[in-house]
Amino acid sequence: MANITKKVSWSSRADESGATGEGTPLLNGSEQPRHSRQDSLRGRPKEIPHNEKLLSLKFESLDYDNIENQLFLEEERRMSHMGFRCLEISRWVVCGLIGFLTGLIACFIDIVVEQLAGMKYQVVKENIEKFTEVGGLSISLILWAVFNSAFVMVGAIIVAYFEPIAAGSGIPQIKCYLNGVKIPRVVRLKTLVVKVCGVICSVVGGLAVGKEGPMIHSGAVVAAGVSQGRSTSLKRDFKIFEYFRRDTEKRDFVSAGAAAGVSAAFGAPVGGVLFSLEEGASFWNQMLTWRIFFASMISTFTLNFFLSIYHNNPGDLSNPGLINFGRFENESVAYNLYEIPLFIAMGAIGGLLGALFNVLNYWLTIFRIRYVHRPCLQVMEAMLVAAVTATVSFTMIYFSNDCQPLGPEHTEEYPLQLFCADGEYNSMATAFFNTPERSVRSLFHNQPGTYNPLTLGLFTLTYFFLACWTYGLAVSAGVFIPSLLIGAAWGRLFGILLASITTTGSTWAVPGKYALMGAAAQLGGIVRMTLSLTVIMVEATGNITYGLPIMLVLMTAKIVGDYFVEGLYDIHIKLQSVPFLHWEAPATSHWLTAREVMSSPVTCLNRIEKVGTIVDVLSNTSTNHNGFPVVVQVAGNDEPAKLCGLILRSQLIVLLKHKVFVELARSRLTHRKLQLKDFRDAYPRFPPIQSIHVSQDERECMMDLTEFMNATPYTVPQETSLPRVFKLFRALGLRHLVVVDDENRVVGLVTRKDLARYHLGKHGLEELQLAQT
Amino acid sequence: MANITKKVSWSSRADESGATGEGTPLLNGSEQPRHSRQDSLRGRPKEIPHNEKLLSLKFESLDYDNIENQLFLEEERRMSHMGFRCLEISRWVVCGLIGFLTGLIACFIDIVVEQLAGMKYQVVKENIEKFTEVGGLSISLILWAVFNSAFVMVGAIIVAYFEPIAAGSGIPQIKCYLNGVKIPRVVRLKTLVVKVCGVICSVVGGLAVGKEGPMIHSGAVVAAGVSQGRSTSLKRDFKIFEYFRRDTEKRDFVSAGAAAGVSAAFGAPVGGVLFSLEEGASFWNQMLTWRIFFASMISTFTLNFFLSIYHNNPGDLSNPGLINFGRFENESVAYNLYEIPLFIAMGAIGGLLGALFNVLNYWLTIFRIRYVHRPCLQVMEAMLVAAVTATVSFTMIYFSNDCQPLGPEHTEEYPLQLFCADGEYNSMATAFFNTPERSVRSLFHNQPGTYNPLTLGLFTLTYFFLACWTYGLAVSAGVFIPSLLIGAAWGRLFGILLASITTTGSTWAVPGKYALMGAAAQLGGIVRMTLSLTVIMVEATGNITYGLPIMLVLMTAKIVGDYFVEGLYDIHIKLQSVPFLHWEAPATSHWLTAREVMSSPVTCLNRIEKVGTIVDVLSNTSTNHNGFPVVVQVAGNDEPAKLCGLILRSQLIVLLKHKVFVELARSRLTHRKLQLKDFRDAYPRFPPIQSIHVSQDERECMMDLTEFMNATPYTVPQETSLPRVFKLFRALGLRHLVVVDDENRVVGLVTRKDLARYHLGKHGLEELQLAQT
Repeated sequence: MANITKKVSWSSRADESGATGEGTPLLNGSEQPRHSRQDSLRGRPKEIPHNEKLLSLKFESLDYDNIENQLFLEEERRMSHMGFRCLEISRWVVCGLIGFLTGLIACFIDIVVEQLAGMKYQVVKENIEKFTEVGGLSISLILWAVFNSAFVMVGAIIVAYFEPIAAGSGIPQIKCYLNGVKIPRVVRLKTLVVKVCGVICSVVGGLAVGKEGPMIHSGAVVAAGVSQGRSTSLKRDFKIFEYFRRDTEKRDFVSAGAAAGVSAAFGAPVGGVLFSLEEGASFWNQMLTWRIFFASMISTFTLNFFLSIYHNNPGDLSNPGLINFGRFENESVAYNLYEIPLFIAMGAIGGLLGALFNVLNYWLTIFRIRYVHRPCLQVMEAMLVAAVTATVSFTMIYFSNDCQPLGPEHTEEYPLQLFCADGEYNSMATAFFNTPERSVRSLFHNQPGTYNPLTLGLFTLTYFFLACWTYGLAVSAGVFIPSLLIGAAWGRLFGILLASITTTGSTWAVPGKYALMGAAAQLGGIVRMTLSLTVIMVEATGNITYGLPIMLVLMTAKIVGDYFVEGLYDIHIKLQSVPFLHWEAPATSHWLTAREVMSSPVTCLNRIEKVGTIVDVLSNTSTNHNGFPVVVQVAGNDEPAKLCGLILRSQLIVLLKHKVFVELARSRLTHRKLQLKDFRDAYPRFPPIQSIHVSQDERECMMDLTEFMNATPYTVPQETSLPRVFKLFRALGLRHLVVVDDENRVVGLVTRKDLARYHLGKHGLEELQLAQT
Repeated sequence: MANITKKVSWSSRADESGATGEGTPLLNGSEQPRHSRQDSLRGRPKEIPHNEKLLSLKFESLDYDNIENQLFLEEERRMSHMGFRCLEISRWVVCGLIGFLTGLIACFIDIVVEQLAGMKYQVVKENIEKFTEVGGLSISLILWAVFNSAFVMVGAIIVAYFEPIAAGSGIPQIKCYLNGVKIPRVVRLKTLVVKVCGVICSVVGGLAVGKEGPMIHSGAVVAAGVSQGRSTSLKRDFKIFEYFRRDTEKRDFVSAGAAAGVSAAFGAPVGGVLFSLEEGASFWNQMLTWRIFFASMISTFTLNFFLSIYHNNPGDLSNPGLINFGRFENESVAYNLYEIPLFIAMGAIGGLLGALFNVLNYWLTIFRIRYVHRPCLQVMEAMLVAAVTATVSFTMIYFSNDCQPLGPEHTEEYPLQLFCADGEYNSMATAFFNTPERSVRSLFHNQPGTYNPLTLGLFTLTYFFLACWTYGLAVSAGVFIPSLLIGAAWGRLFGILLASITTTGSTWAVPGKYALMGAAAQLGGIVRMTLSLTVIMVEATGNITYGLPIMLVLMTAKIVGDYFVEGLYDIHIKLQSVPFLHWEAPATSHWLTAREVMSSPVTCLNRIEKVGTIVDVLSNTSTNHNGFPVVVQVAGNDEPAKLCGLILRSQLIVLLKHKVFVELARSRLTHRKLQLKDFRDAYPRFPPIQSIHVSQDERECMMDLTEFMNATPYTVPQETSLPRVFKLFRALGLRHLVVVDDENRVVGLVTRKDLARYHLGKHGLEELQLAQT
């Protein structure tokens, strides 16, 4: 089983920070029989077949609750009204920068992809044209396959060998980050570089992928970097924005970055804001949302502006995103009331196909976790997929006899004539011999009759399996565009069939409209996003008339899909055993109370504690919580001690590093006064306890935690119900919640994992296992 | 001073429920010297000139925190997984109904207004045409003025005499409700009826008002009614949706209703969702948001569908809102980079004009509070405004010599020829002799040259003062459309001037584009909404290209306007002394702790308490908190008692009403077991304590609160900083927060008013006074 869980790519390396996550490993065994309602788990084999029934203890949580210790409060109290205003202005500046840089990155990716893909298609096209006449098209196929494999190889090598976390779209990782789980290395500069290069390689390599998903991750990395005013990787500290060096502020900026990414990818600033909120925000703050919106706007504007210059049309601000669905003109967008059931039916089809996609990809991922975990194997698999994609495409084009006249205002960039008559082109090639973005646009907007049904059917079938195989490879790539493409293909097919059934050949069955609905249905069926996806689709089409049908389609797709299996991102999050907190506690969890979910006993520290004890507590790998309640013993009293604060592992590490010891014997301070700056400088890569040397003499010293602990941690009584604890946790973004008895004595500690363990399965409430892996 | 605060229309009547709000009136005097940093308040005169420096104690708070007592938990635990699913489905059904009914109401208002206004304008037009030839136009003027005054009189009478809370747009009231303040009678059926009739009368009466703002209030009332499955006014209980009879659920539905209202008003479903979130949500919940979006979509769809039937064009779904900005075609919407500074300048102008509007309206409101508080005076003022509006309009039209040729495709509904040549019409009349919605659309879309600058300048000037005078009258009316109209007028003027400056007469200075920006600037300058307004404007124009400039315009308008004075809604909320909680604690409030803000001492109850004591506590008007900590005395110990729960005034009232007493002597229960249903039946109009008769014998009985109290109230230690308390309050929607010492003994209680008292003034932190009025 270790074999299964160990090698999942985006978390396969140990976190350098050395902290090993919170949880209750000691209780793992003894916890089982506590609840009476474990019927659902009975009868399961002892050996757990897949790790989605586990919660990993290796993920740390983020602290979205400000640590209000004396140092912090002193700083805040010193700050003037003007100081707060300056902070506010710098937040706006940072958001502007995030938007600008994200837009630039999107622009860079777009231009490089276009240039490289253009070159590739040009060369292959010429080659095909040459060999169509003389025979020997297999040489063209080989050329094409080699091109693809070469690009994909580069992309896969940098991902597999340098930064496995950059694989995939990055959306699951950003979801986890915004949810409050620290995914190691997810917002590092190196990840960004690998991601950007990787996505260029995989798109140019002709894989069934999009460049949109990775933009969200890229925006998040940009935000995490810019807001901290330094780069730990580059070892440069610009000494600015030091106030923002904590999880609370950083999360806000990462939300803005993710929104800017969505905005640049789809030209959907409002959709970006809603994406961030849907995935991340627990506490909705007006000013924050407004800043996020600002970052989104700047991002799409920057992209638009630079692309307009690149396209020699400066000032034309009509290309707001990487993908442009093209303009749906008013006459073609109109829909009638009686079309709505048809759209809903399409939503159901999308939900079914999406569920199928997800199940297949799930099995594939399990297979990959078991057998394809060595980097070299991953690179080879990616190359294989690239070669197969080229071969299949070529075969499809080769055997297709769907020839279409090449009109005067044809929009195909690389029309392949192949065996068609002069002045005609191969219709299958518009779908396969093109970047996926262009194919989507053709499916939306080409005149009725451009594709014949067989072409569309075959294309849907092959592309479905190719895309499914591709997602999860060790390359940077998104699943949005392939989903849209599959959906657009069968949607258009649906429209054509519909038009052929209705004898009147009426205008209402415009195939482009059905292609759009199909695209929405398929994407919704796979990723199961709701509100934000509706808005993204609406913004990308540039037409709000479709709002209601798109919403209905997405809703149907989600309901139908959820009946079978979760969304693709959630599946991948579960396979990583991430302790992800959903919006609400499972509905039937009112019978659980804090007493039952908390970890107990808890390691507590005294307010003035011996250094040796602290070092031992931190070094003890079996009590690897990251927060410790601080208690005060009532003098001459045997009673358990009363809670007086909470201190974090990271704070203790900094204290130990700076030797903030009090030598009791001589009763003098041997250290300079520690400041918030020292904590900020160490953030976020606190050294492991093993790297700090504490001498035997020092072990006998005392440490006064009063100034550094959070003196007012949130507490709940033992009888608090799980939904109440959950709400407190989720609304405030907590990391630790101290459970106290009615005398304010510590009886336990609730962490994210204690809550994430409970989830609603098919047979009622289920409890996940905790595992060290 | 009593005179000033007493007669504010939307809260002038005592709440029937009799509960008189929470607060600390006893401490009012003694609290003052507690803080050392009251410099800002020193030097002020003892007599407070305006009541915006007061917080009224008469407003109750809403409970957005579930009361998790034993009854509730038992019910939740009994409920199966299927039960929760059914609940979820009924939530969706309710939201669908809310959307549908809101859409129907919008449709009703639109059709009635169109019919009545059409009749009025037709009659007046014919009359004018008749008298233009023979002379004696003053008769036409009188006819027009009488028409207007008559309609307005009806509207003002029903508002002033029957339901004063229905005055105005209702947006401030809904803001307060969503913020957690119970405004008496704001979501009653009677309010809705008066609102709908009132808005029809005032729009048909030709006032400078819109019918859009009241839709938001109407949607909220619909939501509050439908979700409760009964109408207390009509004394009908449908015995459905009983689970939703509590503040938490009701608030969620009211959010959906407000969103549906916005959606129907502007055809902006996403804008509606964002409006609800911006104003209301503290805790963002994905499913809730999705349901809100559903309600919005259904609402705009319903409106669209029925209007399409009314317009004899069934199935044409292109009229999604009450106001339709008309379609901005692609060529005219393009803007260039160098236009952006112009837009920002317009934003600044809008901010300035908006601030001027608000200041004037503020003075006017103060005047009204002092002198125009009798209903008959209010009706007379409204009639006066109506007559003046008609007179001014007529005069402007009469003296205008801006004649425009009546093109073949002219869009004017009632073109007035007046003294123009045949085949021409008076341009001033398109602005004045029309419903405001049509005037806005003309300003946006009429060909360049349709208006001459003088016309626009004069129109802006007069309409500005008319609108300012109108807002705050005792009529149901919104300020959105007048603001848009003023802004569109000066925006178009701006565009015309710009085009005349640039010699090329270039196409970029399309006046319609500047009219749109001006409208956004003016509206933003007055109401200061940000994100939601951007999206509403974008959705209403049906074109997302304008996203960035509109956002910049709104942002500039807000920044400039905020420099001078608050937004119009906030001014009116302040004038009501509502304890409104903003998003965050004032920036410089870290030096305050729970100990300083809490009310203390607090009236506590014992877990088993004498009935007489409870009756006395509830009857004592000087301790009119609505929540009481329940404590348990440690037997044979003199120490202060420990906290064990929290019980609400309303719960105690229900307990007293049902005589849930334990007669200690005979030690038997004299009452049937109380159920959650009993509390739900009494919700939300709990009887006052005076109406409950408790005999002298019964006073000696005991009451066991264990089952009914919330056994796990949220608590904080005394040292908790104000921002932390504030965040807890805001994120969880609390009403009471118990402050405990380190032994878990009650030392105080923080309520909404204790937090709302602190706000950031020009000179740093200020503290508002509490007042009983």
